[in-house]
Amino acid sequence: MTTMLVAGGRVLRPDLTVTRADVLVDRGSGEIRAVGEDLDADADETLDAEGGLVIPGLVNAHSHVAMTLLRGYADDKPLDAWLREDVWPVEGAMTAEDVRAGADLGLVEMIKAGTTAFADMYFDVGEVVDAVAAAGVRARVGHGVVTVAKDDDAAVADFEESLDVAAEYDGAADGRVSTAVMPHSLTTVGDEYLREYVARAREAGVPLHYHANETVDEVDPIVSERGERPLEYADDRDMLSSDDFVAHGVHVDGTEIDLLAERGTAVVHCPASNMKLASGTAPVQRMREAGVTVALGTDGAASNNDLDMFDELRDAAMLGKLAADDASAVPAAAAVEMATAGGAAAMGIDAGRIEPGAKADLAVVDLEAAHLTPRHDLVSHLAYAARGSDVRHTVCDGEVLMCDREVLTLDERAVRERAEDRARDLVERAEA
Amino acid sequence: MTTMLVAGGRVLRPDLTVTRADVLVDRGSGEIRAVGEDLDADADETLDAEGGLVIPGLVNAHSHVAMTLLRGYADDKPLDAWLREDVWPVEGAMTAEDVRAGADLGLVEMIKAGTTAFADMYFDVGEVVDAVAAAGVRARVGHGVVTVAKDDDAAVADFEESLDVAAEYDGAADGRVSTAVMPHSLTTVGDEYLREYVARAREAGVPLHYHANETVDEVDPIVSERGERPLEYADDRDMLSSDDFVAHGVHVDGTEIDLLAERGTAVVHCPASNMKLASGTAPVQRMREAGVTVALGTDGAASNNDLDMFDELRDAAMLGKLAADDASAVPAAAAVEMATAGGAAAMGIDAGRIEPGAKADLAVVDLEAAHLTPRHDLVSHLAYAARGSDVRHTVCDGEVLMCDREVLTLDERAVRERAEDRARDLVERAEA
Repeated sequence: MTTMLVAGGRVLRPDLTVTRADVLVDRGSGEIRAVGEDLDADADETLDAEGGLVIPGLVNAHSHVAMTLLRGYADDKPLDAWLREDVWPVEGAMTAEDVRAGADLGLVEMIKAGTTAFADMYFDVGEVVDAVAAAGVRARVGHGVVTVAKDDDAAVADFEESLDVAAEYDGAADGRVSTAVMPHSLTTVGDEYLREYVARAREAGVPLHYHANETVDEVDPIVSERGERPLEYADDRDMLSSDDFVAHGVHVDGTEIDLLAERGTAVVHCPASNMKLASGTAPVQRMREAGVTVALGTDGAASNNDLDMFDELRDAAMLGKLAADDASAVPAAAAVEMATAGGAAAMGIDAGRIEPGAKADLAVVDLEAAHLTPRHDLVSHLAYAARGSDVRHTVCDGEVLMCDREVLTLDERAVRERAEDRARDLVERAEA
Repeated sequence: MTTMLVAGGRVLRPDLTVTRADVLVDRGSGEIRAVGEDLDADADETLDAEGGLVIPGLVNAHSHVAMTLLRGYADDKPLDAWLREDVWPVEGAMTAEDVRAGADLGLVEMIKAGTTAFADMYFDVGEVVDAVAAAGVRARVGHGVVTVAKDDDAAVADFEESLDVAAEYDGAADGRVSTAVMPHSLTTVGDEYLREYVARAREAGVPLHYHANETVDEVDPIVSERGERPLEYADDRDMLSSDDFVAHGVHVDGTEIDLLAERGTAVVHCPASNMKLASGTAPVQRMREAGVTVALGTDGAASNNDLDMFDELRDAAMLGKLAADDASAVPAAAAVEMATAGGAAAMGIDAGRIEPGAKADLAVVDLEAAHLTPRHDLVSHLAYAARGSDVRHTVCDGEVLMCDREVLTLDERAVRERAEDRARDLVERAEA
């Protein structure tokens, strides 16, 4: 088994302190074997981290990666009009090739910004899995289910596909792919289907991932029709297990926060999307204080408009302060924790921290930059000043996916050109 | 007189449409001479904009540039404790050399992110002017005045210095430097001094720049003691002329918005700082609808924590939606307008637009990147997806300040090393 030494840099430790250290990676198992100063340099390969900070690969715990094809296609519209007039018509025209082209584009973008794992809800999931296999990152994928405005046959078929996809792709890409059953949300999937298919997912041992409490419009109908909060409704349907993770959690009340903490269900905070769609401000500080596992996600590129998790780090720390009306809320370390260990916990992967035995999912951030000078506090820099373009190398499962800003697993230029072509063609088809 | 052709790219026009065009720059006058396709290529020099978007140089209309030395020194604290325990003690230990080192660092950072003009309130202003002269950008500078907790002699001396500085440096750096008298805010400068020194500034023909309505704590005392809103109080003291510009404007009511529009006083919106210090959400959409000129600013690097105006563009568009509870508020084009023409109007410079006769203050944004693919809408990309590191060239007053990411007017590495050393030394002195 070959080894690789990530050498000469500083390392962000699991307790979020920073020390000078090398990281010895076992490429056979894809795990970190040792972290320390002056490690035996008998490694087969060396990756230069001089002048850099080695951090856990960032975890994007909620995305719709193929939506990169829609980046900038429609912005600055109220959510409902944006979905009906722009997003859904284009998605309706999307082919499997489009999904692959968008997924490849998103993967290049994520690798270039130090993201090594993501959770993805979309359709044509096999294309996303193939893209992940080629790119070398880690993912938890699923087919998004919507039953409203569908007849029973179509609704059943959609849920069956979500179960089939979860069974088919679990363990794909040498174990880097895992799956979840993904009902779109508590208001876009009918109660009768939830009752049946959540039980089926439980029998199959597959976790759930869904949108919850993103907007007031998702909360009010459940409260008025059922007399309970959405997450109480979800809990009654066995949808809050410790393996499940929900996206957004913007409009959650104290009861729901306690419920999330008790059940161990993680929340994926998507601050950029919540701002861009004017959804509201999630009570991140309150959730963390209550013991809820909070992760970060970009959501789709159409409501962000990029997949740079450094933006999410900064947005989470900043928006969390506004939400709490307290400049000490969601400090830099909390944002960094959410984007690393929090995301890994939400996705159920053994990564998000740099220590022996953990998966060797890493990014090396170049500190030799004006906007990262001086070096009073590198954790502060990660949250408030660094950006995706500062990432020098990206490593996942012990393999180098990007070295000195060059993506090694995908042909970046070809991916960009194909995405540009497919996006143009897609819009023409959708608008025809 | 020599000419330079910015050739082969797309150009952001004053109406915020994008066309393929070259830009002919007259280096003698520092102005744009022509914009169009197939311009006579008889220029003395060519700057390659192939695959790029030529935009007006970004305008950072509120900053304290030397505070880059404090980047990451103290974060995540309530404003009052942060100022008293961290910022003021360190600023108290700052020497002129520190100010120069911090200004140089900030200028490298701004040039690398396509910013060509900034407004700056600080002390040791001569150092900032020298830095601006060497770096090649444009600035409106002033000495910040605080009179509270000072005896009369010290207060008078502070205001006299602000007037002296404004007289001394106006027109410096070949006319690229202009000045303003800069009372810190309406609550940190006593009424008796405002009455005297605003009149003196008016006699001298110097505009004012000050913080206004940043936090509730700045508004409430004036309302309760005076029975009027802060900007009514300012207007009574002749502090709202059409040449003046105020920073923040977070907590402004309808009366104040109308007053700003009537008087033609610009507001510099600082969204990152407002989030990081939990100051609140400025009603940007309402101000723009009322006809107020709104510019964007980073504020100091200690409350941001960088000087990348692309972050401000994104933050303004996103936070503006939350503030208005409307996803169609502050669209991408509005954010771009604020960071260019709006900033130029606030600072009183003939720039912020690419057309013949305007100052040749430009940035070329490289579009060949995964996160800027596909190209459905380049204005959307400027607001939501681009970042400072996408800037390929920066031009100010017809001179190339950065070419292919290399800063030509300053030695970036030396500036970074000096800033690192001075910052370390400064903190040691402050904490001693």
